[in-house]
Amino acid sequence: MTPITAYKKLEKYFGRLLALREASGMLHWDAATMMPKSDAAATTRSDQIAALGGVCHEILNNTETSDLLDEAEDQNNLDKWQLANLREMRHMWVHASAVTGDLIEALSKASMKCEIKWRTARTGSDYEGIKPLLSTVLQLVKESAVAKSEVLGCSPYEALMDEYTPGLRQETVDPIFSDIEKFLPNFLQAVLEKQATMGQPIIPKSPFPLDQQRTLGQLLMKALGFDFNQGRLDVSLHPFSGGTPDDLRITTRYNEDDFLSGLMGILHETGHALYEKNLPKKWRHQPVGEARGMDMHESQSLLIEMQACRSREFLTYAAPLMKKIFKREGPEWEIDNLYQIYSTVNPGLIRVDADEVTYPAHIILRYNIEHALISDKMTLNDLPNVWNDGMFNLLGLKPTDHGNGCMQDIHWFDGAWGYFPSYSLGAMAAAQFFDAAVQSNSDILPSISLGNFGPLYDWLTKNIHSRGSLYETPELIKLATGKQLDPSIFKRHLTQRYLT
Amino acid sequence: MTPITAYKKLEKYFGRLLALREASGMLHWDAATMMPKSDAAATTRSDQIAALGGVCHEILNNTETSDLLDEAEDQNNLDKWQLANLREMRHMWVHASAVTGDLIEALSKASMKCEIKWRTARTGSDYEGIKPLLSTVLQLVKESAVAKSEVLGCSPYEALMDEYTPGLRQETVDPIFSDIEKFLPNFLQAVLEKQATMGQPIIPKSPFPLDQQRTLGQLLMKALGFDFNQGRLDVSLHPFSGGTPDDLRITTRYNEDDFLSGLMGILHETGHALYEKNLPKKWRHQPVGEARGMDMHESQSLLIEMQACRSREFLTYAAPLMKKIFKREGPEWEIDNLYQIYSTVNPGLIRVDADEVTYPAHIILRYNIEHALISDKMTLNDLPNVWNDGMFNLLGLKPTDHGNGCMQDIHWFDGAWGYFPSYSLGAMAAAQFFDAAVQSNSDILPSISLGNFGPLYDWLTKNIHSRGSLYETPELIKLATGKQLDPSIFKRHLTQRYLT
Repeated sequence: MTPITAYKKLEKYFGRLLALREASGMLHWDAATMMPKSDAAATTRSDQIAALGGVCHEILNNTETSDLLDEAEDQNNLDKWQLANLREMRHMWVHASAVTGDLIEALSKASMKCEIKWRTARTGSDYEGIKPLLSTVLQLVKESAVAKSEVLGCSPYEALMDEYTPGLRQETVDPIFSDIEKFLPNFLQAVLEKQATMGQPIIPKSPFPLDQQRTLGQLLMKALGFDFNQGRLDVSLHPFSGGTPDDLRITTRYNEDDFLSGLMGILHETGHALYEKNLPKKWRHQPVGEARGMDMHESQSLLIEMQACRSREFLTYAAPLMKKIFKREGPEWEIDNLYQIYSTVNPGLIRVDADEVTYPAHIILRYNIEHALISDKMTLNDLPNVWNDGMFNLLGLKPTDHGNGCMQDIHWFDGAWGYFPSYSLGAMAAAQFFDAAVQSNSDILPSISLGNFGPLYDWLTKNIHSRGSLYETPELIKLATGKQLDPSIFKRHLTQRYLT
Repeated sequence: MTPITAYKKLEKYFGRLLALREASGMLHWDAATMMPKSDAAATTRSDQIAALGGVCHEILNNTETSDLLDEAEDQNNLDKWQLANLREMRHMWVHASAVTGDLIEALSKASMKCEIKWRTARTGSDYEGIKPLLSTVLQLVKESAVAKSEVLGCSPYEALMDEYTPGLRQETVDPIFSDIEKFLPNFLQAVLEKQATMGQPIIPKSPFPLDQQRTLGQLLMKALGFDFNQGRLDVSLHPFSGGTPDDLRITTRYNEDDFLSGLMGILHETGHALYEKNLPKKWRHQPVGEARGMDMHESQSLLIEMQACRSREFLTYAAPLMKKIFKREGPEWEIDNLYQIYSTVNPGLIRVDADEVTYPAHIILRYNIEHALISDKMTLNDLPNVWNDGMFNLLGLKPTDHGNGCMQDIHWFDGAWGYFPSYSLGAMAAAQFFDAAVQSNSDILPSISLGNFGPLYDWLTKNIHSRGSLYETPELIKLATGKQLDPSIFKRHLTQRYLT
C-alpha cells in the first residue's frame, strides 16, 4: 500500500474546512432571510458562527497542518491542479496562522453584533449609537491587519485586500484608481451634458406587485442558466449571493415603485451564482475549486448585470416579457426608452443604487477612507465629516443623514474591510471579459436578443468559471482576454454606452 | 490570579461544542424546509453536517478533555448545577469516546443519504430500493451500539436508548411496556364497544384552506406562549421541532381535508418548543442547560397536545376560534361533537396519525423489532413480514404497502435507533405531569377554557423546563409529581377519557 502523502492528508483537512465554511455561510444566509429579528436570536447565531470560525481557524492553524504544507511543497509528484491547490492552501494558512483563534472569534462575534445593530441604527441615522460597536470591529480588524502584514510583507491595508483578492497590492490599485479618478470628472460632465440635450425617458408607472417582480426575476434567472432545483431566490435587506454550488441562495429586495432595482439585484446575484455553479466539480471543497477572489466574483456579477443585461440585445428579449408579466402596454416599454432609463446617469448618494459611471467614485471614496482608518490617518470620530466632504468633492452631493452617508454599506459594520476595491476592479474586468467574449464569438450578442444566453454561458464557463482558482488573477485575466487588466477597455465601454 | 480550573475549561469546550451542535441543527432544519430537493444539494448538506459531527466528536474525544474530566471530578468546589453539568459532560464523553470519529462521520453521512432517499422511496413503497442504504445505516448503528455497550456495561440496544434517554434500561421499559401490552387489548375492545353504542360525530366539511389553518395554528401557538419574535412555523414532510431556545423552528404539514392533523402537529411541536424556550438561560450552551432527554421532551409535547389541548376546557376556548377562522357554523362545531372527534379511537396503520389509546401498540411493535434487529435476532430481509405480522397481532390490521408499513417512520432511515420507547414513556410522563399540575393548581383547567395557558405554563416552567438537566430523569419526575413514573396514572387517564 502506498503511504498517504502529505498532500493527500491536506486535501482531507481542507475538505472538512471548506465544508465547515459552507455551513457557516448557510447560517449567514438564514440570519439574513429567515431568522426572527430579535437580539437573542442574533446573539445565538453569532455564537454559532464564531464557534465555526474558531474551529476552522484551528484546522488551519496547527503544527500538523504547517508541517504537512512544508512536506507537500517538497513533493515532486503533484500535477498542475494539485500544485495550485497547495498554493491556495498555503495562502489560507498564511492568513490564519498570522492571527490567534481568540482574535478571529472576537472579530466574528463583534462583527455579527455590530452588523445586527447596524440594521436598525442605519434607519435611524444613529452613528453615535453604532460607533462603539464599529470601533471594536475596527480595532480588531486593525490588529488582524497588522499581524498579517508582517507575514505577508505588505502594508496592513494590503493584508486586508489580500484576503478578498489574493495578491492585490496598492501598486496595482493606485494607478488604476487614479486613472479613473482623472477620467471621471470630465467624462461625467460630458455625459450629463449629452443627457440634458435628450428628452426625458418615460418612466413606467408604479406600482409593480412584488409577486410579478418575482416572476419576472425567476424567468430571467432561468434564461441565464440558474436552475431552481439547485437554488433559491429570497428577500433580504441587502441583496447577496450565498449557498453552495449545488444549493445557490441568492436574495434581492423589491421596491413596489421601481421594479428595476429589485430586478438588477437579481441579475447581479445571478451572475455570482453562475460562477459558483460552474466551478470545477472535481475540486469541490478544495481551495483550488473555489472562485478566484472577490474581484473576479464581482466581475461575473457585473458582467451579467452591467454588460449583458443592460445591452440593447437584452432589452430586445426582456421588454416583451416585462410587458407581459406586468400586463402593460405603451411607449414606455419601447426598447429605446427602456435603454435610456437603463443608461441614465444620475449622481446620487447611495452606492448600491449608483449607475456604472458614478459607481467608481463611490468606491474611490471608500478606498481612501478605509485605507486612512486602517493606517491611523483618521479616526471614527472624523468619519462622518470626511465622508460628507469626500462625497461633495467627488460627486457634488451632500448626504442628508448618515443612513445615506457613511452608514449606508454593510461592509465596515460586518468586518469586511479592504473589500471595496474589488467592486471597481471587478467592473473593469467585467468590461474586459465581455469584450473578449463577444469578440471571440459573434453569436453571443444576437443570441441574447433571442433570450438564449447559452453562448455567453459557455464562454464564461470555459474561460472563467471552470478554472476555479487554478490560475492567479492576473494570469486568469490574461488567459481569458489576451492581456492584463486594462482600464482603457472599461473607459471605452463607458464612452460607447454613454457618449455615442 | 486564580488559575482557571479544569471545570471552567470544560465549560468553554462544551460551550463551543453545543454551539456547533446548534449549527448542525439549523442545517437539518434548512434541509427539511428550505433546501432545494436535489441529490447534489442533499449530498453537500450531508457533507457539511458530517464535518460538524466530526469536529464535535473531536472536541469530546481527545486526551485533554478526558484529563480535564478526571481533574474536574476531583474538584471539591463545585455547586449543584456545576456538578450536574459535569455529570452530563461525562455522559456525552462516554458516548463519544466509545466510538471513532470515522464511524460517527460515516453514520452521519449514511443516515443523511438514506433519509433523503427515504423521502421518495416511501411514497413508492420501494423497500428493496431503500434496503441497501438502510442496511448500511443499521450496520453502522450496531457497530456504534456494541462499542458503547462495552463502556456503559449494558446491552447494545440499551446503549442506543441511553443516548436519547440517559440512564434508561430494559429493566425499566420492559415491565411498563408489558403492563400496557396486557392492559390494551381488553381496554381497546371496551372503548370500541362503547364507541359503537354512540352516534357518529359530525365531521366538519373540507376543504380547509391552508392559510386559514396556518392562522389558527399561529393563534393557538401564541396563546400557548410561543413568541414569533423568537421562532417560526414552517412546513416539512414530517413535523418536527428544531432551532434554539432563542430561535425556535417548528414545522407541521397541512392537509386540506383534515385541519386537525396539521393543527395537532403544531400543538405537539409547540409543546417541544416551550420546553426549549424555558430552559435555564444561565446555562445556555452547557449540557446541564439542555432538555432532559427525549422521553422528557416528548412528555412536554404530549402534555400540550394530548393532555391540555384535547381537553373539553381547551375546546371551550378553541371551538369559537375555529368557527371564526374557517368562517363556519353548525352543530359539528359544538364542543361535545368536537370532543367526540378528538377522542375517537380508530386502530390504524400510521403511528403519527394514531390516537393515544392505540399509540402504545405502535411503539411496542417498533421497540420489539428494533431490539431484535440490533441483537441480530432478525434481519432487514425479515422486516416487512415481521412488521406486517406484528401489526396484525397488535391491532388486527395489515399494511397495504410498505409506505404505511415498515417504511412509514423517518427514524430508522435517519439513524435514530432506540428512540421509539421515548414516545410512550413520554406519554405516560405527560399524563403524570398534567395530573400533578392540575392537582397542585386548580386554576389550570378553568384558565384553559378562557384561552389563558399562563398557570399551566408557569407550572411547567417551574417544575420541568427551568430545571434543564439538573436532575436525572427519575428524580425530575419525582420532584415534579411526588412519585416515580407510574403507568397506572396513564391508564387512569385513558379510562377517564375513553370509558367514562
